[in-house]
Amino acid sequence: MKFTEEQVISEISSIFSTLYQNDPRVLVGIGDDAAVVETDQHSVITTDMAIEDVHFKLEWSTAYQIGSKITVANLADIYAMGADPQYLVVALTLTGNEEMQWIKELAQGIADTASASDAVVVGGDLSRGEKIMISITAVGSSLSHITRSGARAGDSIYLSALPGWSRAGFEILSRKPSDSPAHARALSQFKSPELNPALMRSFKSAHALCDVSDSLFIQAEQISKASGVNLVFDSAKFEKAEGFTDLAAVAQSIGCDVWDLISGGGEDHVLLATGLNLPGICVGEVRTGSGVTFTEMKKAPESWRHFN
Amino acid sequence: MKFTEEQVISEISSIFSTLYQNDPRVLVGIGDDAAVVETDQHSVITTDMAIEDVHFKLEWSTAYQIGSKITVANLADIYAMGADPQYLVVALTLTGNEEMQWIKELAQGIADTASASDAVVVGGDLSRGEKIMISITAVGSSLSHITRSGARAGDSIYLSALPGWSRAGFEILSRKPSDSPAHARALSQFKSPELNPALMRSFKSAHALCDVSDSLFIQAEQISKASGVNLVFDSAKFEKAEGFTDLAAVAQSIGCDVWDLISGGGEDHVLLATGLNLPGICVGEVRTGSGVTFTEMKKAPESWRHFN
Repeated sequence: MKFTEEQVISEISSIFSTLYQNDPRVLVGIGDDAAVVETDQHSVITTDMAIEDVHFKLEWSTAYQIGSKITVANLADIYAMGADPQYLVVALTLTGNEEMQWIKELAQGIADTASASDAVVVGGDLSRGEKIMISITAVGSSLSHITRSGARAGDSIYLSALPGWSRAGFEILSRKPSDSPAHARALSQFKSPELNPALMRSFKSAHALCDVSDSLFIQAEQISKASGVNLVFDSAKFEKAEGFTDLAAVAQSIGCDVWDLISGGGEDHVLLATGLNLPGICVGEVRTGSGVTFTEMKKAPESWRHFN
Repeated sequence: MKFTEEQVISEISSIFSTLYQNDPRVLVGIGDDAAVVETDQHSVITTDMAIEDVHFKLEWSTAYQIGSKITVANLADIYAMGADPQYLVVALTLTGNEEMQWIKELAQGIADTASASDAVVVGGDLSRGEKIMISITAVGSSLSHITRSGARAGDSIYLSALPGWSRAGFEILSRKPSDSPAHARALSQFKSPELNPALMRSFKSAHALCDVSDSLFIQAEQISKASGVNLVFDSAKFEKAEGFTDLAAVAQSIGCDVWDLISGGGEDHVLLATGLNLPGICVGEVRTGSGVTFTEMKKAPESWRHFN
């Protein structure tokens, strides 16, 4: 180790504790056996981890991007219940080969991303391992939660944004990036996906809601099954969505099918909702029946499923 | 992989969901983007992880013991705030070489240990990695939390049990175990430390409280500093504690100083409390001043500090 456990904890704690210094919700922050926080009657809890060389590569992403991305994954799961993120705890494994500056940037990526959603980091654990691992648990406040089971025939289907960009970024990195703006957008979405808290919060009147981090197709199937309805996606509506033309161009440039990226990509942290008059992109409708129907769209290759 | 991600999630979910099937606190359990649970006005949150070959070895411990031990570590941190554990989420990394039976026993060790403290596992994340890693976050309910800063001159100092057994077990494993009952107790405490929920809950009138998972000496220093008092431990009182004679015999058999085990051991998940008329073992008193005084006891070797 280039530094002691205490030095790492001190630097990280200093970054995280800045977030809640004047926050009346945090009664006890980092430094005791556990944090004590104000909670509402119903809380939402989720956990999501990122492991070096499984979910990220050090040569692909900066520490800040890595921290931000795993935080986004956790926050998106809270938003996907119609809830608001409040508190995070971070379990971190370091190899001992990191520079302190790298560690501080990782913490800053987590802190800034949490802060943009009014969430604070109130605790953590630090260990040594052979690979870097960040495991975050997020707790949020839920007034009335939205599950995957509320979709009704007659609902429209919405996406908070066009999915597929993160997968496109991954495919580009696995091949050869060009410096086109569309490639840059894909790379950026893979390395450090955007999260727009205001947009994420605007789906609270949805009947069914989830994020599409495992891919649109898989999670549409989950809503279909949980709600006992047929989800019908209309490819023409996707084609009108912001970014579709660029994503299609990226797909072509790397030899992928754009519909594979959209329906099978994963890691997009885009919300999939059913309901009436919701924001985002309307991409189809809910009918009586079962299953998921993609008009003119194919299911992504099975090989894209990964163990994460 | 010997099985798919879905198979592992299905088996683990089945074990965990049994715990909360008739629990009115759990509104949404495993299977959606996040769990939704009932919370009180103040919640306590902590996270603690265990990594293969850092915190446990497969040749030393069964899957059940490994699962139980990391759960105990999390529950103890909740109890150490004077709070009651309610909910756990489990992030798990598997290498792909495990047998399904091993994975199920790991989950059962977590589930049973949680259940003994009226806590339930409401969510998780599964990934592949080069080493097995279990990262648990525990959430508890706190009516009035107890930090490290409440110790007052005139308080007595209490321990819920004699610490040192876990470290003794580790030292035995690193050398050569005998089949004496005292060695067996040490090995058991290292592999799968006991947690007595009723005893842990009986410290709610403490003025200052923490667990001694980092070692009695380090955490006594933390109470001393946080409370601005002098903690004076009396070695004669330790010598009368249940198990002291056995622990001293173990120490001698492996060439350790019993006071090093007690004050510097760590991983015991024993509560350290100050206050009046508390349960457990009275081991000293709080005086005005600063620092930690161990009458006739030495500080454990610096080399025992580990990065965990």
